[in-house]
Amino acid sequence: MKKFAIVLAGSGVFDGAEIHEATMTMLAIKKQGADYEIFAPDIPQHHVVNHLTGEEMKESRNVLVEAARIARGKIKDLKQLNPRDFDAIIFPGGFGVAKNLCTWAFDGPDCTVNGDVEKVIKEMTSLKKPIGALCISPVLLAKVLGNVEITIGDDPATAAGVEKAGAKHVNTGHGEVVRDPHRPVFTTPCYMLDASIVDIAEGAENIVKAILEELK
Amino acid sequence: MKKFAIVLAGSGVFDGAEIHEATMTMLAIKKQGADYEIFAPDIPQHHVVNHLTGEEMKESRNVLVEAARIARGKIKDLKQLNPRDFDAIIFPGGFGVAKNLCTWAFDGPDCTVNGDVEKVIKEMTSLKKPIGALCISPVLLAKVLGNVEITIGDDPATAAGVEKAGAKHVNTGHGEVVRDPHRPVFTTPCYMLDASIVDIAEGAENIVKAILEELK
Repeated sequence: MKKFAIVLAGSGVFDGAEIHEATMTMLAIKKQGADYEIFAPDIPQHHVVNHLTGEEMKESRNVLVEAARIARGKIKDLKQLNPRDFDAIIFPGGFGVAKNLCTWAFDGPDCTVNGDVEKVIKEMTSLKKPIGALCISPVLLAKVLGNVEITIGDDPATAAGVEKAGAKHVNTGHGEVVRDPHRPVFTTPCYMLDASIVDIAEGAENIVKAILEELK
Repeated sequence: MKKFAIVLAGSGVFDGAEIHEATMTMLAIKKQGADYEIFAPDIPQHHVVNHLTGEEMKESRNVLVEAARIARGKIKDLKQLNPRDFDAIIFPGGFGVAKNLCTWAFDGPDCTVNGDVEKVIKEMTSLKKPIGALCISPVLLAKVLGNVEITIGDDPATAAGVEKAGAKHVNTGHGEVVRDPHRPVFTTPCYMLDASIVDIAEGAENIVKAILEELK
């Protein structure tokens, strides 16, 4: 049975992992006969956003502790992720990716990437194992891998940032998956487009399917 | 297009709405060509549970504000729910239902139900509109409606509590849906059983399908 590592950035679209993308990724993996373990970095969230009003709250929360809500408690510190134990790694999206896993939300292509996130991306790459990224998460791959072909949908500003980081950007529509021509790196736009939850299920299913095909 | 009201109890299995059940309910509704709006009561959570350790945290959070994470901000105060605007209402599960929407987690069949939750259940019933409930949420219906046939899976203690509240309990397995013989009340066990996320998707799909059949 093929095993994925899922990396979450908290719980909630505006300051953490996008909940539908995370949940649909889990569903897509199990539905296609594979399995997963979930990880998140044990770090403070950049900030906490009231998802009703959009305003910042005077609170502090921990990325791993909040991501545990999506994982129903079955989650580990990202430092414990050993790439040799997994066939593939996948990053659902959400602003938390651009705020907690890297600083893209503030610094764009000049961002820094969390050290443990950078480490697992590099290790999976050197092991030639597939990496998947949904929504805004492909910016992690642009920043860490540089010369890689990815999609973040069709937003011109983000696409320009991705190219400035050294990657090649390809515009995509709902459910489409881009594979880099040289490496098993897979990306799909999800909520980077104006999408419904059905589009998210389809995007997650397609990217997991493409990764499982690669692993055959 | 048929329209569902989805009622959430926060965000996270141990103190709020079960995230997978909530997300899969949304997916099932949209996938089957219907639409939804999301509601939650604007009240403090009973408590906040660290989902990594299971321990209570010294924090206070609001049910509506946290549920907005699952709803991506598109959510309204339950007080604004007008049953005349909807064809059906559905309650995903999670401990938050038994802690925030009623006090079942502490008082069992002697629990009290949040006034606005009780009101919408009674109004939907008097309008003869379908009510759906997943996981532990059927206890709300047992408590408010009394003489009703429901399932919470196969847990003997909870089933006994349901019967003590005046309802009839039917044991069920993954994905099964119970319809009360007299009223359009639908229930399915989801995570009240030892389930995988694929079972949750199936349970949500089946209960939404049964409700849409009823509405034909």
